[in-house]
Amino acid sequence: MPKSIAGLKGIVPPVVTPLNADYTVDYPSFTKVIEHLLAGGVHGLFFLGSTSEVVFHDEATRRQILEHAVKITNGRVPVLAGAVDPTTDRVIGHSKVAAAIGVDAVVVTAPFYTRTSQAETIDHFRYVADGSPVPVIAYDLPVCVHIKLDRATVTTLANEGTIAGLKDSSGDDGGFRYVLSDMAGKPDFFCMTGGELGVDGILLAGAHGAVPGLGNVDPGAYVRLYNAALKGDWAAAKAEQERLCRLFEIVWCGVPRTSAGASGVGGFKTAMRAMGIIKTNIMARPQRSLNAEESAKVEAIVRGVGGLLS
Amino acid sequence: MPKSIAGLKGIVPPVVTPLNADYTVDYPSFTKVIEHLLAGGVHGLFFLGSTSEVVFHDEATRRQILEHAVKITNGRVPVLAGAVDPTTDRVIGHSKVAAAIGVDAVVVTAPFYTRTSQAETIDHFRYVADGSPVPVIAYDLPVCVHIKLDRATVTTLANEGTIAGLKDSSGDDGGFRYVLSDMAGKPDFFCMTGGELGVDGILLAGAHGAVPGLGNVDPGAYVRLYNAALKGDWAAAKAEQERLCRLFEIVWCGVPRTSAGASGVGGFKTAMRAMGIIKTNIMARPQRSLNAEESAKVEAIVRGVGGLLS
Amino acid sequence: MPKSIAGLKGIVPPVVTPLNADYTVDYPSFTKVIEHLLAGGVHGLFFLGSTSEVVFHDEATRRQILEHAVKITNGRVPVLAGAVDPTTDRVIGHSKVAAAIGVDAVVVTAPFYTRTSQAETIDHFRYVADGSPVPVIAYDLPVCVHIKLDRATVTTLANEGTIAGLKDSSGDDGGFRYVLSDMAGKPDFFCMTGGELGVDGILLAGAHGAVPGLGNVDPGAYVRLYNAALKGDWAAAKAEQERLCRLFEIVWCGVPRTSAGASGVGGFKTAMRAMGIIKTNIMARPQRSLNAEESAKVEAIVRGVGGLLS
Amino acid sequence: MPKSIAGLKGIVPPVVTPLNADYTVDYPSFTKVIEHLLAGGVHGLFFLGSTSEVVFHDEATRRQILEHAVKITNGRVPVLAGAVDPTTDRVIGHSKVAAAIGVDAVVVTAPFYTRTSQAETIDHFRYVADGSPVPVIAYDLPVCVHIKLDRATVTTLANEGTIAGLKDSSGDDGGFRYVLSDMAGKPDFFCMTGGELGVDGILLAGAHGAVPGLGNVDPGAYVRLYNAALKGDWAAAKAEQERLCRLFEIVWCGVPRTSAGASGVGGFKTAMRAMGIIKTNIMARPQRSLNAEESAKVEAIVRGVGGLLS
Repeated sequence: MPKSIAGLKGIVPPVVTPLNADYTVDYPSFTKVIEHLLAGGVHGLFFLGSTSEVVFHDEATRRQILEHAVKITNGRVPVLAGAVDPTTDRVIGHSKVAAAIGVDAVVVTAPFYTRTSQAETIDHFRYVADGSPVPVIAYDLPVCVHIKLDRATVTTLANEGTIAGLKDSSGDDGGFRYVLSDMAGKPDFFCMTGGELGVDGILLAGAHGAVPGLGNVDPGAYVRLYNAALKGDWAAAKAEQERLCRLFEIVWCGVPRTSAGASGVGGFKTAMRAMGIIKTNIMARPQRSLNAEESAKVEAIVRGVGGLLS
Repeated sequence: MPKSIAGLKGIVPPVVTPLNADYTVDYPSFTKVIEHLLAGGVHGLFFLGSTSEVVFHDEATRRQILEHAVKITNGRVPVLAGAVDPTTDRVIGHSKVAAAIGVDAVVVTAPFYTRTSQAETIDHFRYVADGSPVPVIAYDLPVCVHIKLDRATVTTLANEGTIAGLKDSSGDDGGFRYVLSDMAGKPDFFCMTGGELGVDGILLAGAHGAVPGLGNVDPGAYVRLYNAALKGDWAAAKAEQERLCRLFEIVWCGVPRTSAGASGVGGFKTAMRAMGIIKTNIMARPQRSLNAEESAKVEAIVRGVGGLLS
Repeated sequence: MPKSIAGLKGIVPPVVTPLNADYTVDYPSFTKVIEHLLAGGVHGLFFLGSTSEVVFHDEATRRQILEHAVKITNGRVPVLAGAVDPTTDRVIGHSKVAAAIGVDAVVVTAPFYTRTSQAETIDHFRYVADGSPVPVIAYDLPVCVHIKLDRATVTTLANEGTIAGLKDSSGDDGGFRYVLSDMAGKPDFFCMTGGELGVDGILLAGAHGAVPGLGNVDPGAYVRLYNAALKGDWAAAKAEQERLCRLFEIVWCGVPRTSAGASGVGGFKTAMRAMGIIKTNIMARPQRSLNAEESAKVEAIVRGVGGLLS
Repeated sequence: MPKSIAGLKGIVPPVVTPLNADYTVDYPSFTKVIEHLLAGGVHGLFFLGSTSEVVFHDEATRRQILEHAVKITNGRVPVLAGAVDPTTDRVIGHSKVAAAIGVDAVVVTAPFYTRTSQAETIDHFRYVADGSPVPVIAYDLPVCVHIKLDRATVTTLANEGTIAGLKDSSGDDGGFRYVLSDMAGKPDFFCMTGGELGVDGILLAGAHGAVPGLGNVDPGAYVRLYNAALKGDWAAAKAEQERLCRLFEIVWCGVPRTSAGASGVGGFKTAMRAMGIIKTNIMARPQRSLNAEESAKVEAIVRGVGGLLS
């Protein structure tokens, strides 16, 4: 039975997908990732997001990833699944598969490659919600899809019940704050930031939680940050955030030899390899994986922050 | 037996995909579109490109579209197929299916949604060429994939034999001219513009042909333009181009009610419906189709240009 | 004698420039604006910034504005002056004039119109600092100058003593946080946000203050927000911020009839006119001023927030 | 007496401003540049454009440049002057000075730094035309001013007589073609491209001429290209264009050590220094000048093209 995501709050990391040398998913490592995150106290898990390299996986692999994720998570926390492909009906197809596997909600971007208008994007979410057996969370990710969800788009969709939440990775914290304010009367509407660096400030502003890629490396720290915020201990929240900012510097070690994207998720994977959680830091092709020199930089940063590598 | 695309030159329209009211492909109309284009004298056909709304179609539908296209075309001209999805291995999958169906080449963009570097993009094309049974044509389409193929990327891939051609829809005619010059020693390398509006000038610059979406509406005019250019009759080429520029104004009739993309292909479909070639002007959802008022504007433009609507 | 800006912290509004119907500066109103801000308890004043419509004013007018500003302020708080023009030597010229008038620091952007590299931009600040008699504060404003100051650019310039502070209007709060962290050992380096909407969060992150355009309308609220933050009363800081977010909605009342820029500063001027501080809401041409209907919307928002209009 | 620019057609290079080591204008070299261009047969001269590093020069220097330019040109061809600054009234100021000096028209961009709407930009040109004693040519230069002039903006301004011409440096040759078509009934309206690389094609499309920065280096070649086009000898026009494309590769020799802008104009200056026309290749600060190694690359390209360096 699916867990309700109504009222879901807290830390919901977008889970990395560990790979073998032949680019297949390394399921034993994947299990360890999930257990590592749950041991850190996270409140939910988000699979098949950008951090999971979702668009690199075909339909069969996505299905296997979700089946494994749902089986290992086993109801301990809600499971969110990205239903990410360029257009509406393909997103609905992913949503149905994900729902059948047992996820609790799907996370859906605006169309991409094609250039839809804001009005067509509203219709996109309506069609998806109509076709999806589970709740739909809007994923505002202009860096990948090259359209920003307007405040009016989000509030229209939220007020009519089309979407059950928002993951805001737009970087526009001012705009996000207005959504928080507009949604003040709907406390079950999930409003989370996708950022890593200003979680203390955005929790102060009223966000319900965060979906930080860096949470793969140190879930416990984000949970401590969240709990400090819940208690109103903003000095403690800030201190956790500052340590995480230092840790986040692992995301730039591959650039410019790799793309920024490969450097970011590759930094997470490299740290997790050093911590013994996954076996390789391989990125789905054609992305470049971090080499030995770059990995050494990542490890030095992780070690410098303390508490993660002995 | 596949036709060689080595030396393919001329007009190769990206073929629209006519839809029924339930968004399924209208195959009888699709047959008529192909016959209309061949009757216009085109030199090749490009299916499953952006104008074909490729990203709106799932794998099964894409397969059916290509099967129908190859069957109807029946070797009369080379058939190109878009293998368009965000990442490398999914593109390879589409390429294998397309090759098995009998297309003569696949047309491949840089990765999208993910943000790969230029070096990773070069590797992307190498992996795809390695996995594709048929030649690979690079599709430079920054408006959709948000990365521009550098001149050095194209020439590196061309010189090593990874790609067999370039469809340049970047709008950077200066850059395209350098590619033409760099490829002067490889006359079989296919160098075509994706533009509609400056085909006379780009043919003068040495391009091998064009892949104009507007060619769906008036293929014969583009063929006449091309033939005039071949003979060096630039005044005639220019006159054809100017008439086509006037016709191209059909692409803006839906804006701002629809997105620019829906207005453009929707304009082609609306004109073709008026000309009795297809039954509807329906666009794949969530795109908006042109309404009666917008369609009347399209038809007035077509009528004003002359020669297409009685 | 100039006041030192070393250690300047708090609220430093970018002061609007009230205009007469013939586009000349309305100096009596300008005096009232300055007194209104000082009465609100602000810690400094920033003249000739974007909110002051600096680029609309010629050299003679800028000189008069600064002379008036320095005379009226009369040393009660530090005075900052924008030295804003496209290129280095012209900026130096403005800096010398401003210093002679008696401002305490100049605020300088990267070059614009011309497209300089990050390295050339570093040299720009070095030349300006060498030529300016008063300290230079870097103004990161990509929305106007179309180049973002890299973190390394700021820290290089700060560590070598070229710049005395940063006004960050980039919207990249994550990057700003790294600058704050990099500058932790230099407490006199002025690190202020140019934003209006997340001042509570960015103060929590350690910023020294804010330069909010909306501070023209309600300086006291930003001062209360700042003081609450100083005391660690984050709930109070948040409550002030939320009221200010509601007030900030005045900036969108002119769009789309006016540009976003004219709507924003025009919203401030319209509110201040309603509050009896300035006589007109006229914007420098060719910007459009808010009309009666748009002004009524602004006033309704101001009234709705409470405390400003009886 | 000013020359009429009505009906001005042909090659109108944007003239570089040679500098001394102390960044002052090298007037003897400047004279030689003008004579070199006139000897090449150009049809007009455009001073104080982007290629002239206009925004680096203060008002006094601009005045001296124009006085020298008008004196040396001495009515042999029409003189156009850029009136380039961020806002309307400052542009009017430049226009009046330029007119008093005796230029035949001013060239004016949309406002920059400030972000005006298309409607406000239309008003900007109206105010400027009202205040300028000489005709106004619109300069569409989104790469510097970050706003594109819409086709409707240009045709509105042209039809009401506000602007006397368009210099299109937008790179949008499709849009420019529509302007050419819209202006077909106004043969005195000056429609020139600012590009260097597709002048053959855009002349075929009906453009009246070109304003190519590269014309500083080889004005005669552009004049030959233009004359070939006038005679309808498109093969000859193309051959000239292809040689000029090879020559244009001088613009990339400084990157990435310099900005692209400094590399481009710096390439022109370096070539002209090698040809004995100017004494230095110094760029206005903070731009970097090409160093010895980069200069050697420029000279090798110039030598390789033939006809310019013995």
